[in-house]
Amino acid sequence: MEIPEPAKERLLYLLKLLEKGGSATLTSAQIESLAGWSRDSIRKDISYLAADIGKASGYDSAALENAIKKTLRLDRIQKICVVGLGRLGSAYLNFGAFQHGEFELTAGFDANVNRVEILSSPVPLYPTYKMNEVINRFAIEISLLCVPEDQAQLAADKLIAAGIRGIVNFAPVVLKVPPEVAVRNVYVVDELRSLSIRIHTEKA
Amino acid sequence: MEIPEPAKERLLYLLKLLEKGGSATLTSAQIESLAGWSRDSIRKDISYLAADIGKASGYDSAALENAIKKTLRLDRIQKICVVGLGRLGSAYLNFGAFQHGEFELTAGFDANVNRVEILSSPVPLYPTYKMNEVINRFAIEISLLCVPEDQAQLAADKLIAAGIRGIVNFAPVVLKVPPEVAVRNVYVVDELRSLSIRIHTEKA
Repeated sequence: MEIPEPAKERLLYLLKLLEKGGSATLTSAQIESLAGWSRDSIRKDISYLAADIGKASGYDSAALENAIKKTLRLDRIQKICVVGLGRLGSAYLNFGAFQHGEFELTAGFDANVNRVEILSSPVPLYPTYKMNEVINRFAIEISLLCVPEDQAQLAADKLIAAGIRGIVNFAPVVLKVPPEVAVRNVYVVDELRSLSIRIHTEKA
Repeated sequence: MEIPEPAKERLLYLLKLLEKGGSATLTSAQIESLAGWSRDSIRKDISYLAADIGKASGYDSAALENAIKKTLRLDRIQKICVVGLGRLGSAYLNFGAFQHGEFELTAGFDANVNRVEILSSPVPLYPTYKMNEVINRFAIEISLLCVPEDQAQLAADKLIAAGIRGIVNFAPVVLKVPPEVAVRNVYVVDELRSLSIRIHTEKA
Protein backbone atom coordinates (compact mmCIF):
# COMPACT_ATOMS: atom_id res chain seq x y z
CA MET A 1 0.00 0.00 0.00
CA GLU A 2 1.29 3.43 -0.93
CA ILE A 3 1.55 5.64 2.17
CA PRO A 4 1.02 9.39 1.59
CA GLU A 5 4.12 11.54 2.24
CA PRO A 6 2.61 13.52 5.15
CA ALA A 7 1.64 10.25 6.86
CA LYS A 8 5.23 9.02 6.48
CA GLU A 9 6.54 12.21 8.06
CA ARG A 10 4.08 11.85 10.96
CA LEU A 11 5.04 8.20 11.47
CA LEU A 12 8.69 9.26 11.52
CA TYR A 13 7.95 11.82 14.21
CA LEU A 14 5.94 9.28 16.17
CA LEU A 15 8.92 6.90 15.95
CA LYS A 16 11.10 9.61 17.49
CA LEU A 17 8.63 10.06 20.35
CA LEU A 18 8.46 6.29 20.92
CA GLU A 19 12.26 6.05 20.99
CA LYS A 20 12.32 8.54 23.86
CA GLY A 21 10.66 5.74 25.79
CA GLY A 22 8.12 6.06 28.55
CA SER A 23 5.04 3.91 28.83
CA ALA A 24 4.77 0.35 27.51
CA THR A 25 1.42 1.08 25.90
CA LEU A 26 0.07 4.23 24.30
CA THR A 27 -3.50 5.19 23.43
CA SER A 28 -4.43 7.38 20.44
CA ALA A 29 -5.36 10.04 22.99
CA GLN A 30 -1.88 9.97 24.54
CA ILE A 31 -0.27 10.18 21.10
CA GLU A 32 -2.56 13.10 20.29
CA SER A 33 -1.37 14.98 23.35
CA LEU A 34 2.32 14.16 22.70
CA ALA A 35 2.40 14.84 18.98
CA GLY A 36 -0.38 17.35 18.49
CA TRP A 37 -2.23 15.52 15.70
CA SER A 38 -5.86 14.46 15.85
CA ARG A 39 -6.74 10.96 17.04
CA ASP A 40 -8.36 10.20 13.70
CA SER A 41 -5.22 11.15 11.82
CA ILE A 42 -3.12 9.00 14.17
CA ARG A 43 -5.41 5.96 13.76
CA LYS A 44 -5.31 6.38 10.00
CA ASP A 45 -1.50 6.66 9.97
CA ILE A 46 -1.14 3.57 12.14
CA SER A 47 -3.52 1.66 9.88
CA TYR A 48 -0.80 1.81 7.19
CA LEU A 49 1.49 -0.34 9.33
CA ALA A 50 1.26 -3.97 8.34
CA ALA A 51 1.39 -5.33 11.88
CA ASP A 52 -0.61 -6.21 14.93
CA ILE A 53 0.32 -3.42 17.27
CA GLY A 54 -2.41 -3.45 19.88
CA LYS A 55 -6.07 -3.07 20.56
CA ALA A 56 -8.65 -0.90 22.25
CA SER A 57 -6.64 -0.66 25.48
CA GLY A 58 -3.73 1.01 23.67
CA TYR A 59 -0.88 0.32 21.28
CA ASP A 60 2.10 -1.71 22.43
CA SER A 61 4.94 0.85 22.24
CA ALA A 62 7.71 -1.58 21.30
CA ALA A 63 5.57 -3.28 18.64
CA LEU A 64 4.54 0.11 17.26
CA GLU A 65 8.18 1.26 17.09
CA ASN A 66 9.21 -1.91 15.26
CA ALA A 67 6.26 -1.73 12.89
CA ILE A 68 7.06 1.86 11.93
CA LYS A 69 10.73 0.98 11.33
CA LYS A 70 9.78 -2.02 9.24
CA THR A 71 7.14 -0.22 7.18
CA LEU A 72 9.41 2.76 6.54
CA ARG A 73 12.33 0.39 5.85
CA LEU A 74 14.44 1.83 8.66
CA ASP A 75 15.04 -1.63 10.16
CA ARG A 76 18.55 -2.19 8.83
CA ILE A 77 21.95 -0.49 8.73
CA GLN A 78 22.41 1.97 5.87
CA LYS A 79 25.78 3.20 4.67
CA ILE A 80 26.49 6.89 4.32
CA CYS A 81 29.50 9.06 3.49
CA VAL A 82 30.54 12.65 4.06
CA VAL A 83 31.94 14.88 1.33
CA GLY A 84 33.96 17.92 2.39
CA LEU A 85 36.13 17.56 5.49
CA GLY A 86 36.26 21.14 6.73
CA ARG A 87 35.05 22.02 10.23
CA LEU A 88 31.49 20.77 9.79
CA GLY A 89 32.36 17.65 7.79
CA SER A 90 35.08 16.60 10.19
CA ALA A 91 32.72 17.17 13.15
CA TYR A 92 30.44 14.53 11.58
CA LEU A 93 33.35 12.08 11.18
CA ASN A 94 33.36 11.81 14.96
CA PHE A 95 29.58 11.87 15.46
CA GLY A 96 28.63 9.12 17.92
CA ALA A 97 25.30 8.24 16.29
CA PHE A 98 27.12 7.22 13.08
CA GLN A 99 29.25 4.63 14.85
CA HIS A 100 26.52 2.47 16.36
CA GLY A 101 23.21 3.44 14.80
CA GLU A 102 21.09 2.70 11.78
CA PHE A 103 23.30 4.95 9.61
CA GLU A 104 26.90 3.84 9.41
CA LEU A 105 29.42 6.43 8.27
CA THR A 106 31.60 4.43 5.91
CA ALA A 107 33.81 6.97 4.12
CA GLY A 108 34.87 10.61 4.06
CA PHE A 109 35.98 12.47 0.93
CA ASP A 110 37.84 15.69 0.32
CA ALA A 111 39.35 17.23 -2.81
CA ASN A 112 42.40 18.22 -0.75
CA VAL A 113 44.64 15.12 -0.70
CA ASN A 114 46.77 16.61 2.04
CA ARG A 115 43.76 17.06 4.33
CA VAL A 116 42.70 13.47 3.69
CA GLU A 117 46.17 12.32 4.76
CA ILE A 118 46.60 14.35 7.94
CA LEU A 119 43.08 14.30 9.42
CA SER A 120 42.69 11.74 12.18
CA SER A 121 39.39 9.94 11.77
CA PRO A 122 37.63 6.78 12.96
CA VAL A 123 36.35 6.42 9.37
CA PRO A 124 38.48 5.79 6.24
CA LEU A 125 39.14 8.96 4.24
CA TYR A 126 39.68 9.21 0.49
CA PRO A 127 40.53 11.86 -2.08
CA THR A 128 37.54 12.88 -4.20
CA TYR A 129 38.79 11.06 -7.31
CA LYS A 130 38.13 7.75 -5.52
CA MET A 131 34.48 8.62 -4.90
CA ASN A 132 33.00 6.50 -7.66
CA GLU A 133 34.96 3.40 -6.70
CA VAL A 134 34.36 3.69 -2.94
CA ILE A 135 30.64 4.50 -3.16
CA ASN A 136 30.06 1.49 -5.36
CA ARG A 137 32.31 -0.85 -3.40
CA PHE A 138 30.46 -0.16 -0.13
CA ALA A 139 27.01 0.41 -1.69
CA ILE A 140 26.75 3.84 -0.06
CA GLU A 141 23.34 5.36 -0.80
CA ILE A 142 23.30 8.68 1.05
CA SER A 143 25.90 11.42 1.48
CA LEU A 144 26.30 14.42 3.73
CA LEU A 145 27.48 17.33 1.59
CA CYS A 146 29.65 19.69 3.66
CA VAL A 147 31.72 21.46 0.99
CA PRO A 148 31.84 25.25 0.54
CA GLU A 149 29.02 26.89 -1.39
CA ASP A 150 30.96 27.35 -4.64
CA GLN A 151 31.87 23.63 -4.80
CA ALA A 152 28.50 22.18 -3.81
CA GLN A 153 26.92 21.65 -7.25
CA LEU A 154 30.06 20.09 -8.68
CA ALA A 155 30.43 17.74 -5.71
CA ALA A 156 26.72 16.82 -5.95
CA ASP A 157 27.15 16.05 -9.66
CA LYS A 158 30.05 13.71 -8.84
CA LEU A 159 28.04 11.98 -6.11
CA ILE A 160 25.11 11.48 -8.46
CA ALA A 161 27.38 10.16 -11.21
CA ALA A 162 28.71 7.66 -8.63
CA GLY A 163 25.15 6.48 -7.98
CA ILE A 164 24.27 8.22 -4.71
CA ARG A 165 20.49 8.43 -4.16
CA GLY A 166 20.14 10.95 -1.35
CA ILE A 167 22.02 14.08 -0.25
CA VAL A 168 21.84 16.02 3.01
CA ASN A 169 23.01 19.38 1.72
CA PHE A 170 24.64 21.75 4.23
CA ALA A 171 25.70 24.30 1.61
CA PRO A 172 23.50 27.37 1.07
CA VAL A 173 22.75 26.38 -2.50
CA VAL A 174 19.63 25.05 -4.20
CA LEU A 175 21.12 21.94 -5.84
CA LYS A 176 20.03 20.85 -9.31
CA VAL A 177 19.50 17.10 -9.19
CA PRO A 178 17.62 14.57 -11.32
CA PRO A 179 14.15 13.59 -10.05
CA GLU A 180 15.30 10.19 -8.74
CA VAL A 181 17.77 11.81 -6.31
CA ALA A 182 16.38 13.10 -3.01
CA VAL A 183 17.80 16.17 -1.25
CA ARG A 184 17.28 17.60 2.23
CA ASN A 185 18.70 21.06 2.77
CA VAL A 186 20.14 21.87 6.18
CA TYR A 187 21.39 25.41 6.35
CA VAL A 188 21.50 27.05 9.70
CA VAL A 189 20.80 30.55 8.35
CA ASP A 190 17.51 29.26 6.90
CA GLU A 191 16.59 27.84 10.31
CA LEU A 192 17.46 31.15 11.95
CA ARG A 193 15.36 33.06 9.43
CA SER A 194 12.46 30.74 9.99
CA LEU A 195 12.71 31.24 13.77
CA SER A 196 13.10 34.99 13.38
CA ILE A 197 9.91 35.15 11.32
CA ARG A 198 8.01 33.20 13.94
CA ILE A 199 9.33 35.42 16.73
CA HIS A 200 8.80 38.76 15.03
CA THR A 201 5.77 38.40 12.81
CA GLU A 202 3.40 36.39 15.01
CA LYS A 203 -0.03 37.71 15.83
CA ALA A 204 0.36 40.29 18.58
CA MET B 1 -2.06 42.21 7.83
CA GLU B 2 -1.47 38.75 9.26
CA ILE B 3 0.37 36.52 6.77
CA PRO B 4 -0.41 32.78 6.98
CA GLU B 5 2.55 30.61 8.07
CA PRO B 6 2.77 28.63 4.79
CA ALA B 7 2.89 31.90 2.83
CA LYS B 8 5.75 33.10 5.07
CA GLU B 9 7.67 29.89 4.41
CA ARG B 10 7.11 30.25 0.66
CA LEU B 11 8.24 33.89 0.73
CA LEU B 12 11.36 32.80 2.63
CA TYR B 13 12.12 30.23 -0.04
CA LEU B 14 11.48 32.79 -2.78
CA LEU B 15 13.92 35.13 -1.00
CA LYS B 16 16.56 32.41 -1.16
CA LEU B 17 15.98 31.97 -4.89
CA LEU B 18 16.18 35.74 -5.46
CA GLU B 19 19.44 35.95 -3.52
CA LYS B 20 21.01 33.45 -5.91
CA GLY B 21 20.66 36.24 -8.43
CA GLY B 22 19.94 35.94 -12.10
CA SER B 23 17.48 38.11 -13.97
CA ALA B 24 16.60 41.67 -13.00
CA THR B 25 12.89 40.99 -13.40
CA LEU B 26 10.87 37.87 -12.77
CA THR B 27 7.37 36.96 -13.93
CA SER B 28 4.99 34.78 -11.90
CA ALA B 29 5.50 32.10 -14.55
CA GLN B 30 9.27 32.16 -14.03
CA ILE B 31 8.83 31.93 -10.26
CA GLU B 32 6.42 29.04 -10.80
CA SER B 33 9.02 27.14 -12.77
CA LEU B 34 11.81 27.93 -10.25
CA ALA B 35 9.91 27.26 -7.05
CA GLY B 36 7.26 24.79 -8.12
CA TRP B 37 4.23 26.65 -6.72
CA SER B 38 1.25 27.74 -8.77
CA ARG B 39 1.17 31.23 -10.25
CA ASP B 40 -1.96 32.03 -8.27
CA SER B 41 -0.31 31.06 -5.03
CA ILE B 42 2.74 33.19 -5.89
CA ARG B 43 0.63 36.24 -6.75
CA LYS B 44 -1.31 35.85 -3.52
CA ASP B 45 1.92 35.51 -1.46
CA ILE B 46 3.42 38.59 -3.11
CA SER B 47 0.22 40.53 -2.44
CA TYR B 48 1.09 40.36 1.28
CA LEU B 49 4.19 42.47 0.68
CA ALA B 50 3.54 46.11 1.43
CA ALA B 51 5.52 47.45 -1.51
CA ASP B 52 5.43 48.34 -5.16
CA ILE B 53 7.43 45.56 -6.69
CA GLY B 54 6.46 45.61 -10.32
CA LYS B 55 3.70 45.21 -12.80
CA ALA B 56 2.42 43.08 -15.66
CA SER B 57 5.84 42.83 -17.31
CA GLY B 58 7.32 41.13 -14.24
CA TYR B 59 8.49 41.79 -10.72
CA ASP B 60 11.65 43.79 -10.10
CA SER B 61 13.93 41.19 -8.44
CA ALA B 62 15.82 43.60 -6.17
CA ALA B 63 12.62 45.33 -5.04
CA LEU B 64 10.96 41.97 -4.43
CA GLU B 65 13.94 40.79 -2.36
CA ASN B 66 13.89 43.96 -0.26
CA ALA B 67 10.11 43.83 0.20
CA ILE B 68 10.26 40.22 1.43
CA LYS B 69 13.06 41.06 3.88
CA LYS B 70 11.17 44.09 5.16
CA THR B 71 7.83 42.33 5.50
CA LEU B 72 9.38 39.32 7.23
CA ARG B 73 11.52 41.66 9.38
CA LEU B 74 14.78 40.19 8.12
CA ASP B 75 16.11 43.63 7.15
CA ARG B 76 18.39 44.15 10.14
CA ILE B 77 21.21 42.44 12.05
CA GLN B 78 20.04 40.00 14.71
CA LYS B 79 22.24 38.74 17.51
CA ILE B 80 22.64 35.04 18.17
CA CYS B 81 24.73 32.85 20.46
CA VAL B 82 25.89 29.24 20.53
CA VAL B 83 25.60 27.02 23.60
CA GLY B 84 27.85 23.95 23.75
CA LEU B 85 31.34 24.28 22.27
CA GLY B 86 32.07 20.68 21.27
CA ARG B 87 32.89 19.82 17.67
CA LEU B 88 29.66 21.11 16.15
CA GLY B 89 29.36 24.22 18.32
CA SER B 90 32.95 25.25 17.73
CA ALA B 91 32.50 24.68 13.96
CA TYR B 92 29.78 27.34 14.09
CA LEU B 93 32.05 29.78 15.98
CA ASN B 94 34.05 30.03 12.79
CA PHE B 95 31.13 29.99 10.37
CA GLY B 96 31.65 32.73 7.78
CA ALA B 97 27.98 33.66 7.40
CA PHE B 98 27.83 34.68 11.08
CA GLN B 99 30.60 37.24 10.72
CA HIS B 100 29.10 39.42 8.00
CA GLY B 101 25.47 38.48 7.56
CA GLU B 102 22.06 39.25 8.99
CA PHE B 103 22.76 37.00 11.99
CA GLU B 104 25.71 38.08 14.10
CA LEU B 105 27.21 35.47 16.39
CA THR B 106 27.84 37.45 19.55
CA ALA B 107 28.74 34.89 22.23
CA GLY B 108 29.57 31.25 22.83
CA PHE B 109 28.83 29.40 26.08
CA ASP B 110 30.06 26.14 27.57
CA ALA B 111 29.67 24.60 31.01
CA ASN B 112 33.33 23.57 30.88
CA VAL B 113 35.28 26.65 32.04
CA ASN B 114 38.53 25.13 30.85
CA ARG B 115 37.19 24.71 27.31
CA VAL B 116 36.00 28.31 27.30
CA GLU B 117 39.50 29.44 28.23
CA ILE B 118 41.54 27.39 25.77
CA LEU B 119 39.35 27.45 22.63
CA SER B 120 40.51 30.01 20.11
CA SER B 121 37.51 31.84 18.71
CA PRO B 122 36.68 35.01 16.76
CA VAL B 123 33.69 35.41 19.12
CA PRO B 124 33.84 36.03 22.91
CA LEU B 125 33.30 32.85 24.95
CA TYR B 126 31.78 32.63 28.42
CA PRO B 127 31.10 29.96 31.04
CA THR B 128 27.43 28.97 31.24
CA TYR B 129 26.84 30.77 34.53
CA LYS B 130 27.27 34.10 32.69
CA MET B 131 24.51 33.25 30.22
CA ASN B 132 21.81 35.41 31.76
CA GLU B 133 24.01 38.48 32.02
CA VAL B 134 25.49 38.19 28.51
CA ILE B 135 22.22 37.42 26.72
CA ASN B 136 20.59 40.44 28.29
CA ARG B 137 23.55 42.76 27.82
CA PHE B 138 23.71 42.09 24.07
CA ALA B 139 19.96 41.53 23.55
CA ILE B 140 20.57 38.10 22.02
CA GLU B 141 17.27 36.62 20.83
CA ILE B 142 18.18 33.29 19.23
CA SER B 143 20.58 30.53 20.26
CA LEU B 144 22.09 27.52 18.55
CA LEU B 145 21.94 24.61 21.00
CA CYS B 146 24.85 22.22 20.38
CA VAL B 147 25.18 20.44 23.74
CA PRO B 148 24.98 16.64 24.17
CA GLU B 149 21.57 15.03 24.29
CA ASP B 150 21.48 14.58 28.07
CA GLN B 151 22.19 18.28 28.70
CA ALA B 152 19.88 19.75 26.08
CA GLN B 153 16.71 20.31 28.14
CA LEU B 154 18.65 21.84 31.06
CA ALA B 155 20.54 24.19 28.73
CA ALA B 156 17.29 25.13 26.97
CA ASP B 157 15.70 25.92 30.35
CA LYS B 158 18.61 28.24 31.19
CA LEU B 159 18.38 29.96 27.82
CA ILE B 160 14.65 30.49 28.23
CA ALA B 161 15.13 31.81 31.78
CA ALA B 162 17.64 34.28 30.31
CA GLY B 163 14.99 35.50 27.86
CA ILE B 164 15.94 33.76 24.62
CA ARG B 165 13.05 33.59 22.16
CA GLY B 166 14.21 31.05 19.59
CA ILE B 167 16.36 27.91 19.66
CA VAL B 168 17.92 25.96 16.79
CA ASN B 169 18.20 22.59 18.49
CA PHE B 170 20.88 20.21 17.23
CA ALA B 171 20.36 17.65 20.01
CA PRO B 172 18.20 14.60 19.26
CA VAL B 173 15.66 15.62 21.90
CA VAL B 174 12.14 16.98 21.68
CA LEU B 175 12.55 20.07 23.89
CA LYS B 176 9.81 21.17 26.24
CA VAL B 177 9.44 24.94 25.88
CA PRO B 178 6.74 27.48 26.68
CA PRO B 179 4.49 28.50 23.75
CA GLU B 180 6.19 31.88 23.28
CA VAL B 181 9.56 30.23 22.53
CA ALA B 182 10.13 28.95 18.98
CA VAL B 183 12.24 25.86 18.25
CA ARG B 184 13.63 24.41 15.03
CA ASN B 185 15.10 20.94 15.31
CA VAL B 186 18.11 20.11 13.18
CA TYR B 187 19.25 16.58 13.69
CA VAL B 188 21.10 14.92 10.90
CA VAL B 189 19.77 11.43 11.67
CA ASP B 190 16.21 12.75 11.16
CA GLU B 191 17.25 14.17 7.80
CA LEU B 192 18.84 10.84 6.85
CA ARG B 193 15.71 8.96 7.85
CA SER B 194 13.56 11.31 5.85
CA LEU B 195 15.77 10.79 2.79
CA SER B 196 15.86 7.04 3.31
CA ILE B 197 12.07 6.91 3.35
CA ARG B 198 11.87 8.88 0.13
CA ILE B 199 14.45 6.63 -1.53
CA HIS B 200 13.06 3.30 -0.36
CA THR B 201 9.32 3.69 -0.09
CA GLU B 202 8.50 5.71 -3.19
CA LYS B 203 6.00 4.42 -5.70
CA ALA B 204 7.78 1.83 -7.84
